Amino acid sequence: MFARLFKPKTTVRAHCDLPCGVYDPAQARIEAESVKAICEKYQQNEDPVFRTRALIIKEERANLVKHHLWVLWTDYFKAPHFEKYPQLHQLFNEATKLAGAAGAKGSVDPAVAEELLAKIDEIAKIFWETKQAA
Amino acid sequence: MFARLFKPKTTVRAHCDLPCGVYDPAQARIEAESVKAICEKYQQNEDPVFRTRALIIKEERANLVKHHLWVLWTDYFKAPHFEKYPQLHQLFNEATKLAGAAGAKGSVDPAVAEELLAKIDEIAKIFWETKQAA
Amino acid sequence: MFARLFKPKTTVRAHCDLPCGVYDPAQARIEAESVKAICEKYQQNEDPVFRTRALIIKEERANLVKHHLWVLWTDYFKAPHFEKYPQLHQLFNEATKLAGAAGAKGSVDPAVAEELLAKIDEIAKIFWETKQAA
Amino acid sequence: MFARLFKPKTTVRAHCDLPCGVYDPAQARIEAESVKAICEKYQQNEDPVFRTRALIIKEERANLVKHHLWVLWTDYFKAPHFEKYPQLHQLFNEATKLAGAAGAKGSVDPAVAEELLAKIDEIAKIFWETKQAA
Amino acid sequence: MFARLFKPKTTVRAHCDLPCGVYDPAQARIEAESVKAICEKYQQNEDPVFRTRALIIKEERANLVKHHLWVLWTDYFKAPHFEKYPQLHQLFNEATKLAGAAGAKGSVDPAVAEELLAKIDEIAKIFWETKQAA
Amino acid sequence: MFARLFKPKTTVRAHCDLPCGVYDPAQARIEAESVKAICEKYQQNEDPVFRTRALIIKEERANLVKHHLWVLWTDYFKAPHFEKYPQLHQLFNEATKLAGAAGAKGSVDPAVAEELLAKIDEIAKIFWETKQAA
Repeated sequence: MFARLFKPKTTVRAHCDLPCGVYDPAQARIEAESVKAICEKYQQNEDPVFRTRALIIKEERANLVKHHLWVLWTDYFKAPHFEKYPQLHQLFNEATKLAGAAGAKGSVDPAVAEELLAKIDEIAKIFWETKQAA
Repeated sequence: MFARLFKPKTTVRAHCDLPCGVYDPAQARIEAESVKAICEKYQQNEDPVFRTRALIIKEERANLVKHHLWVLWTDYFKAPHFEKYPQLHQLFNEATKLAGAAGAKGSVDPAVAEELLAKIDEIAKIFWETKQAA
Repeated sequence: MFARLFKPKTTVRAHCDLPCGVYDPAQARIEAESVKAICEKYQQNEDPVFRTRALIIKEERANLVKHHLWVLWTDYFKAPHFEKYPQLHQLFNEATKLAGAAGAKGSVDPAVAEELLAKIDEIAKIFWETKQAA
Repeated sequence: MFARLFKPKTTVRAHCDLPCGVYDPAQARIEAESVKAICEKYQQNEDPVFRTRALIIKEERANLVKHHLWVLWTDYFKAPHFEKYPQLHQLFNEATKLAGAAGAKGSVDPAVAEELLAKIDEIAKIFWETKQAA
Repeated sequence: MFARLFKPKTTVRAHCDLPCGVYDPAQARIEAESVKAICEKYQQNEDPVFRTRALIIKEERANLVKHHLWVLWTDYFKAPHFEKYPQLHQLFNEATKLAGAAGAKGSVDPAVAEELLAKIDEIAKIFWETKQAA
Repeated sequence: MFARLFKPKTTVRAHCDLPCGVYDPAQARIEAESVKAICEKYQQNEDPVFRTRALIIKEERANLVKHHLWVLWTDYFKAPHFEKYPQLHQLFNEATKLAGAAGAKGSVDPAVAEELLAKIDEIAKIFWETKQAA
């Protein structure tokens, strides 16, 4: 297909709870990258209007990170996956906590967003292994 | 980075209107793929509860396609892009129409969703050309 | 307080991710009860307009069940809880699955909503034990 | 039922406009308690990021208070109730105003949230009287 | 202003709970007109996909009617208005009920939407009288 | 009709993507007027709680301006309109940009909101010409 020629990388997957069967951890990663970029811009700009807007938008983006991860955890991963990867529950719990008040929501430090991204990458690694095994 | 090793393909980009500077036409494409998958499942399943749920969810997904395309059109593309690609306005207008009532919303034919995907791919091709030129 | 006099039972708790510190599994239970009531009304009424409305609204309510459970799992429960109740991760995973496509979303059988309610009660039991222990 | 044993207090009721027939003033009360808790935390924490987040979230919670009260007023209470309790319209009007800009939205004083809670309790008292009479 | 020349009629007013001070009953009327148009189109089209979409969208529009009316009732109208127009509470209660399950939500009869529109017009008449008196 | 007598001006039109066929550029204008009023109130009030609330609400209102304009551009205007008014694409692109981060979202200057209003009026003028021609 043409899409594959000009940008073979866009294979990310969305989700709906029909379910349509389309999933991808990239959705959570994208929002987490946005959170990190917002933190960086916040640090570089002391204008109070800009900073308030940054916090409003970061809150929304972090909510989306949590949502996309919850969807993967409940809707994509099945019992056999949790047996094969016993750390998976905790990984998701830590990742969603890192997106919340004690992590990327409560902080404007890009390093916290980096930690969140690393946790999402751990999940993504397992996700793609299960896809290859399917 | 580690993410790049296990899945070099996840380079898609999200958006927020801070702006965080993170964009990617894949967001629209993902939702359109979901729309297509829903149409296929609708055709294969005559259960009325399933079919009603499919239409409820397809409506939401098609709304997201429109939203993600509108965001790209308004927030990512700038005057110089529209000069270089004079067809860009019409392309976005046709793509968002194809996601609406006269297209993927009003139809359960996977072929209509295919048309929408092709239109999004045309936009994506231009998007990535502008990124490389930047 | 006066509220206590006329209705000492209203001690349920909501949530926000400030966090405000206010949580209660009743929020998920309430929505699940609504899902069950919708299933019952669906069975008793063959009017197609009513039935379509029932499915639209049940979809929303089931989404809220999932959301409230996810919030408890990520935002209320901490590492020591998961150590003390090793089944907690799986319980939440099963409960949210039961609220989704393979459970209360995909079905109009009140018995499925009953199963969901029972699973929420298991979670609630643990929740209130941890509150008393605190 | 088991739920009744371990926590007989969780009898609160939600709502949907099918209608499913499930209502409870506790939903409004819960959000108002959250508003009050946010005000208290705001007063105790001078960190500007925390305070902005508190205002973002308080705005959402206060909107929910208004919404839940409006639903009770329109969807639960019927003509005979308004005849028996002629003060009911004004009570709801005052309660929703207290949740808005002139009350809990515009203020970070926990005392204002207290007033809102007291008003909700007045409504709840009438609500439970009408339930017993039914 | 130019807007006044080409279309002097666009004086409708929106709302936000800052408050910005901009209100207009036309917002509720618009959504009610949409509800009516949807009912008419539903009657004229037996395609099941179209009809399900019509019910999904009518539900949303009727929710907006209720919301806009509630906002006027709580946020625009003050104590002196309710003294001068003692029927105002009941009028709003009836109008919002007419937009709900027992009215325009539960029915696909354009006549029910007409009743809702008439009720909104009664409210609008009072609204504009209070504006002139101010 | 009665509504016409007491306020002949309320002819504004909403939208839904059934489509119901009801459109009006006033919807975008209303929200933009709200944005302008918020900017004015922001300038007159140095209370930090008020100012943060103003920014939260302005963000929402500006999002609605963008949304209503996008809907008109995609759902109301058809190919013949774009042929007759070749500037229409650019007009919508500029108007939605003016509602975003580089315009009314990023600024608390009422003059920026004025520019946005003027742009919406240009669109409205064309809209009403096409309605008369229909």
